Amino acid sequence: MGDCETTGVGNWVDELINSVGSGKVSTAEEIRREFGTDRWHAAAMPDAVVRAKSREDVVAVLRFANEKEIPVTTRGAGVGYVGGCVPVEGGILLSVREMDQIIEVNPADGVAVVEPGVILNDLQEAAREKGWYYPPDPASLKECSVGGTIANNAGGPRCVKYGVTRHYVLGLEVVLPNGEVLETGGRCHKNKTGLDLIGMFVGSEGMLGVITKATLRLIPHPEARAMLTATFPRFETAASAVQSILDSGWQPSGLEITDGFTLQAARSRLGPEMLPDGDAHLIVELDGRKQTLLQDLAKLRELLESVGAENLEEATDQESCEAIWTLRREFSYSLRDTGLIKLNEDIVVPRSKLVELVRFARSLQDETGIPVACFGHAGDGNIHTNLMVADYDTDPVAREKADEALDILFRWIIENNGQITGEHGVGIAKKRWFPDAVGPVSMQIHRGLKNTLDPKGILNPGKFIV
Amino acid sequence: MGDCETTGVGNWVDELINSVGSGKVSTAEEIRREFGTDRWHAAAMPDAVVRAKSREDVVAVLRFANEKEIPVTTRGAGVGYVGGCVPVEGGILLSVREMDQIIEVNPADGVAVVEPGVILNDLQEAAREKGWYYPPDPASLKECSVGGTIANNAGGPRCVKYGVTRHYVLGLEVVLPNGEVLETGGRCHKNKTGLDLIGMFVGSEGMLGVITKATLRLIPHPEARAMLTATFPRFETAASAVQSILDSGWQPSGLEITDGFTLQAARSRLGPEMLPDGDAHLIVELDGRKQTLLQDLAKLRELLESVGAENLEEATDQESCEAIWTLRREFSYSLRDTGLIKLNEDIVVPRSKLVELVRFARSLQDETGIPVACFGHAGDGNIHTNLMVADYDTDPVAREKADEALDILFRWIIENNGQITGEHGVGIAKKRWFPDAVGPVSMQIHRGLKNTLDPKGILNPGKFIV
Repeated sequence: MGDCETTGVGNWVDELINSVGSGKVSTAEEIRREFGTDRWHAAAMPDAVVRAKSREDVVAVLRFANEKEIPVTTRGAGVGYVGGCVPVEGGILLSVREMDQIIEVNPADGVAVVEPGVILNDLQEAAREKGWYYPPDPASLKECSVGGTIANNAGGPRCVKYGVTRHYVLGLEVVLPNGEVLETGGRCHKNKTGLDLIGMFVGSEGMLGVITKATLRLIPHPEARAMLTATFPRFETAASAVQSILDSGWQPSGLEITDGFTLQAARSRLGPEMLPDGDAHLIVELDGRKQTLLQDLAKLRELLESVGAENLEEATDQESCEAIWTLRREFSYSLRDTGLIKLNEDIVVPRSKLVELVRFARSLQDETGIPVACFGHAGDGNIHTNLMVADYDTDPVAREKADEALDILFRWIIENNGQITGEHGVGIAKKRWFPDAVGPVSMQIHRGLKNTLDPKGILNPGKFIV
Repeated sequence: MGDCETTGVGNWVDELINSVGSGKVSTAEEIRREFGTDRWHAAAMPDAVVRAKSREDVVAVLRFANEKEIPVTTRGAGVGYVGGCVPVEGGILLSVREMDQIIEVNPADGVAVVEPGVILNDLQEAAREKGWYYPPDPASLKECSVGGTIANNAGGPRCVKYGVTRHYVLGLEVVLPNGEVLETGGRCHKNKTGLDLIGMFVGSEGMLGVITKATLRLIPHPEARAMLTATFPRFETAASAVQSILDSGWQPSGLEITDGFTLQAARSRLGPEMLPDGDAHLIVELDGRKQTLLQDLAKLRELLESVGAENLEEATDQESCEAIWTLRREFSYSLRDTGLIKLNEDIVVPRSKLVELVRFARSLQDETGIPVACFGHAGDGNIHTNLMVADYDTDPVAREKADEALDILFRWIIENNGQITGEHGVGIAKKRWFPDAVGPVSMQIHRGLKNTLDPKGILNPGKFIV
C-alpha cells in the first residue's frame, strides 16, 4: 500500500497540495490512520489529511473538494463518542485542531472569540481568569475542541442550570461547501435578525459547513459553589429526591445520579470506604454568593434528610468540590476496570421515567446477560446507559449480541418518548436508529436542508442524513 | 366593495369554506380589517379570515392554499410590534388564537404542553400554581399568544439570567405548507438527535410552517425575589455600574437601565416624587432562596453605593417588586403622554457600547429634531430606542423624516456590530435594513431554507425573505 489507496487519488492529492500548500497536506499512512478515528469503535482511512492553519486554508480545501466532489470530513480534537468525524467515505480529513487561538476574552461585551481548535478547558480558564464563566462542561473538557462541542451541541452536568452549548453561541464564521464564508450573529447577547442560522450549524456534526471562528457568550462567574453527596437505599428514593429538590424551587448547578451497578464497580476500584452503602448515589451542586451559599446548603441538606438520604457529605470549598467531581469521573473508570468494553449511550428520558429506565436496564441485563450501568444527569433525564461488553471490537458474535441489546434499548427509548442522544450526537454509532427517532417528515426536511447547504454532498458523507 | 376585493377570490373562498367549514371562515369586511393589523403602523386586508379550532383545520387550510398558491399569514394575538402578521399580499389570514388549550403542566417532566393561542400570562400562572416557572416575559405577556412568542423568539427583562424563548422550546408540532405534520423534539430536556429543526421554526415569523402545539421547558420557580432601584447622576455611571455588577459575579434576574429623556417624561406623568433626581435609572432584580436573598441584596446594595448609585430603594416582597415593574412599564406610557407616536426599536449593541448608543441617540435627536428615548435590558445590551414622532401615521412628510432618522439609526447599529432586532422580529418594520444586517451569503441561505420548506412561497409572503 502506497500513500494512496484509491485509484486516481494521486492526481487530486497533488492538486490539493498545490491549492493548500504541501506543509499542510499529509498522505503518510500513520497520519491518515491517526486522523481516521475518534473514541468510538470505528476507523476509516482518508486519502489525505489537511491540517488547516487558517480560514483561508479551509476555503481552499472546500473550493477544491467541491469542484471535484471529494468528501471532506472535519475533525477537531477527535475525542467524540459516536464516530462523527470518522471519514467513512475517504477523501479529505480536514483537521482544524491547529486553528487554536483564543482571539479575545472580553468581559465588557461578555464574549469570547475563539478558533475552533481551542481546547474547551483552555477557554474556560481564560474566562475564569477574568472572573467570567463559560458553563458547557462535557466530561472531555480537557481534551475536546470548542469546534467539536459546537458541532455536537455538547452538554455536561452544568446544563441542568445553564443549558447546552447552543445557548452560548452568539456568532459563527462558517465556510460553506462552495468556499463562501458566512458570518452570522455577532457579539450581541440577543438577536432576532432573521432565521436562526447559528442553531442550524450548532449540532450539525460537520455536515453543513466548517466553523472557523465562534463568538461565545460568557456569563458572570458565580462567586462560590458547594456540594452535597448522599446515598439512598433504593434508586427509586433517589429519583424521587431529585424531583423533591426541583419541586422546592432549587436550581442546582449539578444534579447527578448513579445506580447500584456502577456503585459496586466503584467500590471495587476505590475501596468500600470511599462509597458508603446504598443502591443509589446523588450529587447536588449549588452555586451562588459566598456569604450565603452555606446557609442554603444547610437548608438543602435538611430537605435531603427528609426524603431518605443517607451518608450525607458536604463539600464547601473549591478543593473538596473538585474531589467529588473527580470521584464522579472515577465511576466511569471503575466500569473500565471490569475489563469490559463500555458502550456509553447518552440517552434521554422524560424526567418522570428515570426509575422506569433503570428498571428497564435491569431487565435488559437479565435478558441479554450484558451488564448495564446507569449514571448521569438526573435533572435533565440524560442518563448515560452503559452496556458492558467483552470483546466488542474483536469478536463478531459478541458484537452482534451487543448490537441486538442496543436495538432493544433504543426501541424502548423511542417508544417511551425518549431521545437517542442528549449530548454525544448521532455520528455512526446511532445512525441506524435515527430514522425511527425522528420520523419520515423530519428526515425529508433534514435532506432538504442538507441539499440547500451542501448540494454536492461533500461534507461528512455517510452519516445520519442520507 | 363587497366581501372580496380580488378578482376570482369569490370562487376560492367558497371552496375554502367547503374545506374548513363555514363557521370558521369569514369574509366580512370588519373582521378582515380587524385581523389585518398588529401594533405596528401597517394594515392590509386579507381576502378571508380563518379561525382555526384544531390542527386539522390548519392542515385543511394549508393543503388548500398550497394547491391553489394562495398566501397564508398566520396570526396569534396580533400584538406584535413589527407588522409580522399583517397579510401584505392578501389571501388567507389564519388565526390560531382560538387554539388556546393548556394541554398539560407536568412538574414531573418539567414541561408544559400548549396550543399556540394560549396567552403567555395564563401559561405562566398555570406553571406558577404548581411551583414551576416559565421565564420568558415580553412586556406584552398578558396579551400575547405563546405561538407568537415562539414565532418571534420573544425575550423580556428576565432573559439576562434565563435566556430567550428558544431556550424553553423542547418540542413542536408544525403543519408544513403542504399540509404534512412535523413532530420534532419532545419532552426531554436534552436532545441532540439530528439538526436543530426546532431552532429553525422558533423565530421564523410564520414563514416556514404553522405551529399547532408546543412542549415547553419549565424550571423550578425561585423561592423569592428582591429588587434594588437607584438613580445615577450620569448615564455613563449607570452603564459602568451594570458592568461592575456582572464583573462581581452577580447573575441578576433583571437589569434595566433608563435614560434621562425617559425619566423626564416619567416625572411629568407620575410626579417628581416618584422618581428622584438623576440622569439615569437602574433596576436590579435578584431571585433565589428566601432565607438568604436579603443578605445578598444588602451586599449588592453596598456594591451599588460604591459605584455612585443614589436614591437607592429596596423591594423585598412580591408586592413591592411588582410595584417597581409597574413603574418600569409606566416609563413607556409616559412617552405616550408626550402626545407623540413612539417608534419602539428593539436594537441590540455589544454591551460595552451602551454609553455610545445613548450618546448617538442624543446626537440623532440634535440632528433630526426628533426626541429619542432609550431604556431597556442593560445586561443584554438590548436597549429599546424610541423615536418620538408627531403624526407618523397621518403626515407623509413627518413619516419620511422619521424614516430617514431610522435609516441613520440602523446604519449606526449595523456599523457598530449591533443587531437590528433583539426580540420584536423583522416583520415589515425592519425589512428594509435586513439585507444589510445579515449580508448576501446569509440572504442566500435564508432563501434556500424558505424554498426547502415552502417551495410555493405561500406562508407570510412579502416579509424579510425575498
